[in-house]
Amino acid sequence: MTTMSGNLRIDGARLMDRLAALGTIGALPGGGVKRLALTDEDKVGRDRLVSWMRDLGLSVEVDVIGNIIGTRAGSSDAAPILLGSHIDTVATGGLYDGALGVLAGLEIVETLNDAGITTHRPIAVAAFTNEEGARFAPDMMGSGAQTGALPLDDMLRAKGIDGTRVGEELDRIGYRGDLPVGAIRPAAFLELHIEQGPVLEAEGYAIGAVEGVQGISWTEFTIEGVSNHAGTTPMAMRHDAGVVAAEIALLARRIATEAGPPQVATVGSIMVEPNLVNVVPDKAVLTVDLRHTDERDLQRAERRLHEGAQAAVEAEGCAMAARSLARFEPVRFDTRLVDLVAENAAGLGLGVKRMPSGAGHDAQMFAPICPTAMVFVPSRHGLSHNVHEYTAPDQIEAGANVLLTTVLQLAGEGSILDR
Amino acid sequence: MTTMSGNLRIDGARLMDRLAALGTIGALPGGGVKRLALTDEDKVGRDRLVSWMRDLGLSVEVDVIGNIIGTRAGSSDAAPILLGSHIDTVATGGLYDGALGVLAGLEIVETLNDAGITTHRPIAVAAFTNEEGARFAPDMMGSGAQTGALPLDDMLRAKGIDGTRVGEELDRIGYRGDLPVGAIRPAAFLELHIEQGPVLEAEGYAIGAVEGVQGISWTEFTIEGVSNHAGTTPMAMRHDAGVVAAEIALLARRIATEAGPPQVATVGSIMVEPNLVNVVPDKAVLTVDLRHTDERDLQRAERRLHEGAQAAVEAEGCAMAARSLARFEPVRFDTRLVDLVAENAAGLGLGVKRMPSGAGHDAQMFAPICPTAMVFVPSRHGLSHNVHEYTAPDQIEAGANVLLTTVLQLAGEGSILDR
Repeated sequence: MTTMSGNLRIDGARLMDRLAALGTIGALPGGGVKRLALTDEDKVGRDRLVSWMRDLGLSVEVDVIGNIIGTRAGSSDAAPILLGSHIDTVATGGLYDGALGVLAGLEIVETLNDAGITTHRPIAVAAFTNEEGARFAPDMMGSGAQTGALPLDDMLRAKGIDGTRVGEELDRIGYRGDLPVGAIRPAAFLELHIEQGPVLEAEGYAIGAVEGVQGISWTEFTIEGVSNHAGTTPMAMRHDAGVVAAEIALLARRIATEAGPPQVATVGSIMVEPNLVNVVPDKAVLTVDLRHTDERDLQRAERRLHEGAQAAVEAEGCAMAARSLARFEPVRFDTRLVDLVAENAAGLGLGVKRMPSGAGHDAQMFAPICPTAMVFVPSRHGLSHNVHEYTAPDQIEAGANVLLTTVLQLAGEGSILDR
Repeated sequence: MTTMSGNLRIDGARLMDRLAALGTIGALPGGGVKRLALTDEDKVGRDRLVSWMRDLGLSVEVDVIGNIIGTRAGSSDAAPILLGSHIDTVATGGLYDGALGVLAGLEIVETLNDAGITTHRPIAVAAFTNEEGARFAPDMMGSGAQTGALPLDDMLRAKGIDGTRVGEELDRIGYRGDLPVGAIRPAAFLELHIEQGPVLEAEGYAIGAVEGVQGISWTEFTIEGVSNHAGTTPMAMRHDAGVVAAEIALLARRIATEAGPPQVATVGSIMVEPNLVNVVPDKAVLTVDLRHTDERDLQRAERRLHEGAQAAVEAEGCAMAARSLARFEPVRFDTRLVDLVAENAAGLGLGVKRMPSGAGHDAQMFAPICPTAMVFVPSRHGLSHNVHEYTAPDQIEAGANVLLTTVLQLAGEGSILDR
């Protein structure tokens, strides 16, 4: 069976068909997808996924945070190999971010079904709730709750940008399941994902063997000033919340450029009130996203940000509140699994680069509880969280075959997981 | 009659009652008023004003841009003395900005009615459409169209922040009148208004004799960048529209502080898209409000702003479009009328300061077509466009009496207007 499964390949066209079909749900005019977590679009996508899982003979379970897990029985009742990612998107998302990791799992299951292969370990495919964090903070919510990194009750109470709450929306779309979080203890976790960055394309690699994930720090700053008339208030007498927000936005940029790679900093959201041409803003709310592969460097950036923001607030005579929306330390994946991914890519004749992930992924939530690794495929122009996100079919097929090969080794009897 | 009218005084309590009554229309919880131009609240306010005018025996006309003019006949058909201001407010407005100038006109009419005085010239009281520009740009729209400074058709087509158009909203609330713009050619225009700044209070004056109005320049910048993933995009490869917006906001602040008073600069509105924590903004829209009493200095500030904005856009590899939302040159009022206001204030035992207006006012639209002046009363803490806007009843009464005395002199036969 080893030789046979060693030559086994997934059906790239079939995988592309499922990606296209899921991409029609929440499709944006002119391309791209908006399928924010727990919206009606997400519900339709979930229903489609569950029906595909049932068609493939998987036993489907939904846990209390809405994670969907479809399991293919093995010849033993050993702990399963879990494959998964998410199907929620940002407001201006693409077809592949998240969906690829879930649908590649289904493709692997269908490939095994067609080949009549029964693995020693069960193989489970999961779609985790709200990985993006675009509607509800924090991101990676479903996988974080599943593995115990995030407190379930807080997550269910989390309030969205539209004022809704996770628990209420789970009930509304019918995806608050019975399976307790943590009920599934995988023997290993594997996630295939697009790089979402420019490195593989720029350097000409087909596969990224992901060694770990950058630490992520999200902070929301709320600045309170005094609204006043734009024409009659001398500059020296102003307490302009918008000016402080602008200072913090440029401070974040400076922190990243001065620290140098891999430090990145992004102000993705800025809002001022009353937001009128001729009124000095009395309130500003902005978010800062800091990421670094080294925890000490990330903490250094956080300190600079908070100290600099406080100084800007005091200089303008405003008040400020800072709130952490998300905080994840850098993660290192299992060296044996990273090696396996790299070897399998090479064995398939694919160029492979060992690299960190610049984005957060569900995989990082599993790293503390089981051997975990990720497989990256290139993103054209490095674009993602963007309607022009694109990865070529042959690149997707290559990544799915690396995943298949790795899964078969891990799911077999006497794999490195048993040593 | 001169002596008699010289001792004539308005009824401060009656004026405060009308201010309070109008202030209930669009009242905000906890104080302040939101009565944006041509909204349902504005319609109710207009209906109230018209009924007050009719009760006072004024002949009421509405022009094609929605300005409401109530005229009290004189003993001659000479050109009228026009008193007026506006009743629209910003989203977080107070009770006095605009309303005072209109209702003080009504109070003067009622005072003359009670005293049985018929003036030589008619006295007209006007409320002009959309002075604030908070819903539709440009501001001072009604008075600008009335005096020909702003093209009527463009104003009727002007699109609001909510996507509506001025002409449609005028029809909707029933205030697109028949009177052509420019039909009323006043012999003089007088406007009583709160200072909306801190100067009179800080220096202890009861009255401001306004010598002119700062020039105003409103520009909307739209910056186009590339939206991308906040974690995986190296800083050097970013085209962040939000960063450029922040640069422009701080540039505007620098331009004002470096030029020094009376230069002011305000960024009241900033919006980024997609406005998500973990997505580099691909679009930002912000407004810059520049004001100065000297046209050359104002143009210098505009040049610095556009050149600096262009440099920031190029540094980030973004694209930019700049659109002028409003542009008014500095205005000088009629020296004889300014002198008259100052003399009358002194004659009433009130401390008076000659000063420019930091805010735009309907009066500036009349300055080119007839002798024009303004009377200022103090604003507590200089606050306005703010729910805490406040001027004490005795200060309001003092300002209205200065206006009354001045109106009586100008409306009399053989006034300075006839020389």
